[in-house]
Amino acid sequence: MSEPAYTRLKVDDRRRQLLDLGADLFARHAYDELSMAAIAREAGISKGLLYHYFPSKSDYFQATVAAAAEELGALTEPDPDLPPLEALTASLDAFLAWIEDNAVAYGKLMQGATGAAEVRDLVAAVRDETARRLLEAVDDDRPAVRTAVRGWLGYMDAACLDWVEHRDLEREELRNLLLGSLGGALMAAGAKLPA
Amino acid sequence: MSEPAYTRLKVDDRRRQLLDLGADLFARHAYDELSMAAIAREAGISKGLLYHYFPSKSDYFQATVAAAAEELGALTEPDPDLPPLEALTASLDAFLAWIEDNAVAYGKLMQGATGAAEVRDLVAAVRDETARRLLEAVDDDRPAVRTAVRGWLGYMDAACLDWVEHRDLEREELRNLLLGSLGGALMAAGAKLPA
Repeated sequence: MSEPAYTRLKVDDRRRQLLDLGADLFARHAYDELSMAAIAREAGISKGLLYHYFPSKSDYFQATVAAAAEELGALTEPDPDLPPLEALTASLDAFLAWIEDNAVAYGKLMQGATGAAEVRDLVAAVRDETARRLLEAVDDDRPAVRTAVRGWLGYMDAACLDWVEHRDLEREELRNLLLGSLGGALMAAGAKLPA
Repeated sequence: MSEPAYTRLKVDDRRRQLLDLGADLFARHAYDELSMAAIAREAGISKGLLYHYFPSKSDYFQATVAAAAEELGALTEPDPDLPPLEALTASLDAFLAWIEDNAVAYGKLMQGATGAAEVRDLVAAVRDETARRLLEAVDDDRPAVRTAVRGWLGYMDAACLDWVEHRDLEREELRNLLLGSLGGALMAAGAKLPA
């Protein structure tokens, strides 16, 4: 008798598949509604094998959020070969495209509906990294500039949440609102949008 | 034997006193650390009397947040006798002064550390009311303007949280950052800051 297909998958591939499935499942279902048994069923594997990869549902959930954060970080990494403003524009476009593809998960996550402390920490870490990148591009570390950049990240979150809810702006229109508000926020702090 | 002082307080005054105490206690202590017994002790009343006013710690907590939200709404109500920009400036000043007086509670609340769904709903209601006031002042209901206003409220939350954390800007400096970023956000949406 041949082995079931899943045992032939490499460990990393299986883990990656489970994380992709998790992103989908946690977007479509409330956290409390999902059981490890149901997840294993959806994955077409045994509950034992699922537990082999993730010791608990909470670990599984956190791993899916961490994987999404990593994917997002890579997608929005500024291209060092582009002028700063073009690199920022490209990063924003990639970010908004990712949100379009993951609208429900993004909405749930940002509204804190799935708010374990570990998940909040992950969202905060993504935000810190984005602030670091922006401040590096602006190259001005006065408190007013830091405040403007942190404030603008809040603008971005709120505007994107509103977008996911209403869907009445083109992606490019929202991107231009984001760039314009960043310019205004930096100008109010006596700094300039990188050119 | 004379009655204890607390029975002579009118019901409304007692309730108000307990809500003020709650704002202080929940700011200084983690929610889970506070018991109804400890709260009654701090208030100098019996646990029975505390339960008479608030059937549970969760009810007590929500009532303190609701009272703070109501106070804040009254403090930042725009003065209809002032030109819109002056009224907005005065509201922002009142808001920032309130945050200075309630820095710890504000920080905890906005970071979602005390995030019961009911509390999140209250914070969202304050935000909705502020958005309504702003959109009324701007008098332009295009989606881009709504997005800019919702985004700016996110800017304000994030900038104020950063301020509470670092305290390295004067209140007036932060207020000017807020006004400047609102101007930039509205301009990017093709609208104007009310004059």
